[in-house]
Amino acid sequence: DLLQMLHDVHYADIAEIINELNLEEATYLIKLLDSKKTSDIITELDEDVRDKILNNLSSKEIAKEIVELDTDDAADIINELPDERKEEVISYIDDHEHAKDIVELLRYDEDTAGGLMAKELVKVNENWTVLNCVKEMRAQAEHVTRVHSIYVVDDNEKLIGRLSLKDLLTASTRSAIKDVYITKVDYVSVHDDAEDVARIMAKYDLEAIPVVDELGRLVGRITIDDIIDVIRDEAERDYQMAAGISKDVEAKDSILKLTRARLPWLLIGTFGGMMAAKIITSFQQGMGDYVILLSFVPLIQATAGNVGVQSSAIIVQGLANDSIDGQILSRLFKEFLLGLVNGGSIASVVLLITHFLFDTQYVVSLTIGIAIISVIIIAAIIGTFIPIFLHKRGIDPAVATGPFITTSNDIFGILVYFSIAKLILGF
Amino acid sequence: DLLQMLHDVHYADIAEIINELNLEEATYLIKLLDSKKTSDIITELDEDVRDKILNNLSSKEIAKEIVELDTDDAADIINELPDERKEEVISYIDDHEHAKDIVELLRYDEDTAGGLMAKELVKVNENWTVLNCVKEMRAQAEHVTRVHSIYVVDDNEKLIGRLSLKDLLTASTRSAIKDVYITKVDYVSVHDDAEDVARIMAKYDLEAIPVVDELGRLVGRITIDDIIDVIRDEAERDYQMAAGISKDVEAKDSILKLTRARLPWLLIGTFGGMMAAKIITSFQQGMGDYVILLSFVPLIQATAGNVGVQSSAIIVQGLANDSIDGQILSRLFKEFLLGLVNGGSIASVVLLITHFLFDTQYVVSLTIGIAIISVIIIAAIIGTFIPIFLHKRGIDPAVATGPFITTSNDIFGILVYFSIAKLILGF
Ligand SMILES: [Mg+2]
Ligand SMILES: [Mg+2]
Ligand SMILES: [Mg+2]
Ligand SMILES: [Mg+2]
Ligand SMILES: [Mg+2]
Ligand SMILES: [Mg+2]
Ligand SMILES: [Mg+2]
Ligand SMILES: [Mg+2]
Ligand SMILES: [Mg+2]
Ligand SMILES: [Mg+2]
Ligand SMILES: [Mg+2]
Ligand SMILES: [Mg+2]
Ligand SMILES: [Mg+2]
Repeated sequence: DLLQMLHDVHYADIAEIINELNLEEATYLIKLLDSKKTSDIITELDEDVRDKILNNLSSKEIAKEIVELDTDDAADIINELPDERKEEVISYIDDHEHAKDIVELLRYDEDTAGGLMAKELVKVNENWTVLNCVKEMRAQAEHVTRVHSIYVVDDNEKLIGRLSLKDLLTASTRSAIKDVYITKVDYVSVHDDAEDVARIMAKYDLEAIPVVDELGRLVGRITIDDIIDVIRDEAERDYQMAAGISKDVEAKDSILKLTRARLPWLLIGTFGGMMAAKIITSFQQGMGDYVILLSFVPLIQATAGNVGVQSSAIIVQGLANDSIDGQILSRLFKEFLLGLVNGGSIASVVLLITHFLFDTQYVVSLTIGIAIISVIIIAAIIGTFIPIFLHKRGIDPAVATGPFITTSNDIFGILVYFSIAKLILGF
Repeated sequence: DLLQMLHDVHYADIAEIINELNLEEATYLIKLLDSKKTSDIITELDEDVRDKILNNLSSKEIAKEIVELDTDDAADIINELPDERKEEVISYIDDHEHAKDIVELLRYDEDTAGGLMAKELVKVNENWTVLNCVKEMRAQAEHVTRVHSIYVVDDNEKLIGRLSLKDLLTASTRSAIKDVYITKVDYVSVHDDAEDVARIMAKYDLEAIPVVDELGRLVGRITIDDIIDVIRDEAERDYQMAAGISKDVEAKDSILKLTRARLPWLLIGTFGGMMAAKIITSFQQGMGDYVILLSFVPLIQATAGNVGVQSSAIIVQGLANDSIDGQILSRLFKEFLLGLVNGGSIASVVLLITHFLFDTQYVVSLTIGIAIISVIIIAAIIGTFIPIFLHKRGIDPAVATGPFITTSNDIFGILVYFSIAKLILGF
């Protein structure tokens, strides 16, 4: 039957199936399966599906799922519950230690090391003997799925080093831990940013990293599987922001949610378009014979937008990877040169096409060519400057790409285009 | 001195320092440090820096670095060498087994499981006893930094299961492996796409995964640290493609390299701009009193571009996560509704602004409003359809976002705008 059939299916796969079911079917399945498996399924569900299912379960039923989970996943799920249910669910957790650990984790912001860590880890005191330690470790390891490292603390619980399983097994059982442990240990602090933790673990190829509190005491451990989720979420968010989507949305979300994520950026573009219209109208009056210039507004605007997005994307990524040294001026100068090269190539193409296909006067073609070089240089400089500026102010430069830079470049591009045309053609 | 000072610095940090040095300093440092450390440093360098440094080393010196590395990193570095040096370097590797393993890995495309895997792993035969196995394993484990799992093979080297270290230690030494191993084991095939491997390991929270060949024989193992690099590279590439950058570039690359990555997309935008110019010119002639319409071209274009990028970004991510079911028609209908909602809001804003700030006739304001709703709907549908279409054809839809969709939406947007205006205003 169904139970038998699902027995061998991985919880992550069942979660994918449940994401597609309706609420009744989903709740039925969750109540049918035993809580060893459903607890893991619940952690893997889409947040909105999970919300609805938990809403259909009693606090006691939720607590039954929670006790099966590692403290990090338990805290994440409780954090998503409405405030009035949090305490009730916690009160149903019989294991007092487990409940205490979860409550401690609820304190931390989800974007910090504290919000990522679990209390499950293996630690030993420097004053213990290896024998002592092996015994104690066996007891602790029962609660820890994968051990990775054994952390060494002093009498004040301060993290002072680590031991590998191998070190422990090869040392004489009577030696003291303090004589065999390694003092070099990577760690992060509870309040460190989640993305910084990800960068450290990726750089040093770590599978787990210990977390210390303000006093240097060992309070938790972060494992690489949760860091992979951080890296992927971060990449998705940056990609969406660059595309002008302001909240974390998916294709299957409701029209209301999608509109809330998309409309703000579209409105910024709308106001930009209105300003551009004002600029054009003000130039249009005296333009006389040169109305052909208006036909090239889309060319100017598209070029300015594309160049701006390219420049800023490179800077945003460089800043994210810490590979950009602070020298703004030399960056801007490089973008100036790049603008000359790209602008020159594009201007030549434009000169040829306008001459043969549009029959414009030489001076008009030349005007468009000169304008396009200027616009490219300015767009590149704006696209470079804004992310660096935001970064220096402590604002995530990823918000700067996409529609924001596109919009400012639309306006500046068109202003520069007509100003140059007016200067050269004298209308 | 310098050597002493660098002794405690992690190789990934030294690599970051060397990336900033000039070639002479860098080569000096690499020759100064001992090859245990420099081999790891070399794997972490930026590719162009590594190229130059290896160019400054003799084939014998490179071989000395290579022998210190795991086979996966060794093969990656040899793969980057000019063809004529590859064989020479390999001929200097004394350990015949190691050389054979590396040569085998050179066969695989770098974007496949075979290109990611290392030959270092711990495997046991199902017919061995546990005692046998522990001995053999100790010997193998010497070459394997982190064990994760012990893989079980049959007499034909076919992967049939796995064992945890814990299972092995708790089983009686005289039992046969075939009586204690777990038959359920995740694995991938040598030719599987690297991104699919990443998806599987992330989904099932794996720290390592075995790789089998066409006959199901165990031929390698992929570890999570290398998968993190795949995930990050993939995210960077998608982000750059969305921003219209066609090759993998960094801020510090040369102007020539940056131009090669950026100019192709800019030229597509240029041709799009020229087509838009043709469209405008053809409508312009009969426009008469309605030249004010030309002022709103940037608005139309910006809106079409922003909507197209938003729609496609959501689809591209959904396709990457496998969370989009194939129903194109229902997706398009949803985008139609979304377009109505967003378009309605923007059109109202536009109606108000044009009325109060531009003094346009009612019928002109209305024309612009209706045009903007139509343009938004069409842009959303194009932005949705193109990625799904490419995906069905087996083309990576990530190439579709950014300038490509922006450009087609520029053209269609302007065409639709003036066509509707012509229809309503009758010029
Ligand atoms: Mg249940
Ligand atoms: Mg778990
Ligand atoms: Mg958490
Ligand atoms: Mg790494
Ligand atoms: Mg590595
Ligand atoms: Mg976890
Ligand atoms: Mg970010
Ligand atoms: Mg050396
Ligand atoms: Mg490789
Ligand atoms: Mg996972
Ligand atoms: Mg997980
Ligand atoms: Mg590796
Ligand atoms: Mg991709």
